[in-house]
Amino acid sequence: MMQNHPHDLEKHLLFARHPAAWKMIAPHVRIKTCHKEDAVLHHGDAASALWIVLSGWVKLARQTPDGKETITGLCTHGDVFGEAALFPHASYPYNADVLGHSAELASIPANIIRDAVGHDSALSATVMSLLNERTSQAQLKLEHMSTLSASQRLGCFLLRLCYMQAGGAKTLQIPVEKHVLAAYLGMKPETLSRSQQQLKPLGIAVSGAEIEIESIEKLRDFVCNSCSESGACDVEAAS
Amino acid sequence: MMQNHPHDLEKHLLFARHPAAWKMIAPHVRIKTCHKEDAVLHHGDAASALWIVLSGWVKLARQTPDGKETITGLCTHGDVFGEAALFPHASYPYNADVLGHSAELASIPANIIRDAVGHDSALSATVMSLLNERTSQAQLKLEHMSTLSASQRLGCFLLRLCYMQAGGAKTLQIPVEKHVLAAYLGMKPETLSRSQQQLKPLGIAVSGAEIEIESIEKLRDFVCNSCSESGACDVEAAS
Repeated sequence: MMQNHPHDLEKHLLFARHPAAWKMIAPHVRIKTCHKEDAVLHHGDAASALWIVLSGWVKLARQTPDGKETITGLCTHGDVFGEAALFPHASYPYNADVLGHSAELASIPANIIRDAVGHDSALSATVMSLLNERTSQAQLKLEHMSTLSASQRLGCFLLRLCYMQAGGAKTLQIPVEKHVLAAYLGMKPETLSRSQQQLKPLGIAVSGAEIEIESIEKLRDFVCNSCSESGACDVEAAS
Repeated sequence: MMQNHPHDLEKHLLFARHPAAWKMIAPHVRIKTCHKEDAVLHHGDAASALWIVLSGWVKLARQTPDGKETITGLCTHGDVFGEAALFPHASYPYNADVLGHSAELASIPANIIRDAVGHDSALSATVMSLLNERTSQAQLKLEHMSTLSASQRLGCFLLRLCYMQAGGAKTLQIPVEKHVLAAYLGMKPETLSRSQQQLKPLGIAVSGAEIEIESIEKLRDFVCNSCSESGACDVEAAS
């Protein structure tokens, strides 16, 4: 996975196998440090760039006309957002705001990434695969709302982070406020607290924004046996 | 939208703007009539074809190792499934079974569609757009689970069908058993019955598999004012 340094962007899943496309894209990439609650982009704005998180956390959220908020994504390093930029005349389908102290973000202008994808069929295949993975994740999340318990959903989120953050690391930093994480996981804050308690016997210790995981195996047994993707999703691929 | 006839496949959203690609693909398309509860494909099978529903209904579902079923999709004519065939070495992420009396399906061998997409960057852009639309729909469905009432979720499903089935038609045929539709919409069968009752004052009459909608406008007001996509999704595009 990508390391926490902008110059490693060429090693990102999106570009690693496409050095020629990356060479064309690289001069146009902008690196930006955004601070807590900075709005990175607004729902409905013309999608002018594709974004990659280099460090920190970004919340993707949308609001209904009658004032409810849904959290569509919690992105951390290596995560891509703003895929609408891949399509002409598209607008962003959510707001993106920085969580925690600050986040370092890379942006690729929409015309540059579209041009690269249009001219490089291998890059285009990688982008399609990314979009398909997005659908799978959203559908799996839908499934989990009815098949997993709250503590299993929290466990699944942690397993994904173990994979994303540092190839199987067991200490996670999640500077995401409790009510935000709870809303993202489709539960109330008090249910999230209860779920953290329920994961304790599996050797999972939460202390502020830091979470220690004693055994990924135990957590995987607890979560993945209740999931239709058991053995096939990214979480499992991390093993 | 596509008509209920295989020879109109070239007018499908996927191919309408890509006559050269369609010419290459057309000789390889197979048309198949499947009957009630025929298994079209199995979760985990190598994804050997991309499928398009010509008529009838197909249920996409997955099972967890501990025996729960989730309905990932209810497809009717014009709908595409089996997108895993777009990716090498991929397997289908669900079972597909025929609902109702029978369904007519078109299948395009995986190597043919992959080859066409790899050689035609415009077709590739259309496929990307389809995949992105899939993600949007799944994320919207996730949002709806927490922001819409059960009767609004049923209303949104009906609005989409009005759009899909016949460019704004007001009589829908839905030969989908109540427990299946309820599970797909994330509710209990008795909640679905109650939701049907709640839609009556909006002029929506359910009689067996037939649903009559007096005013799409009224239904849209009832549903879309509570949805973050209000004014931008396919449902609205149908207006």
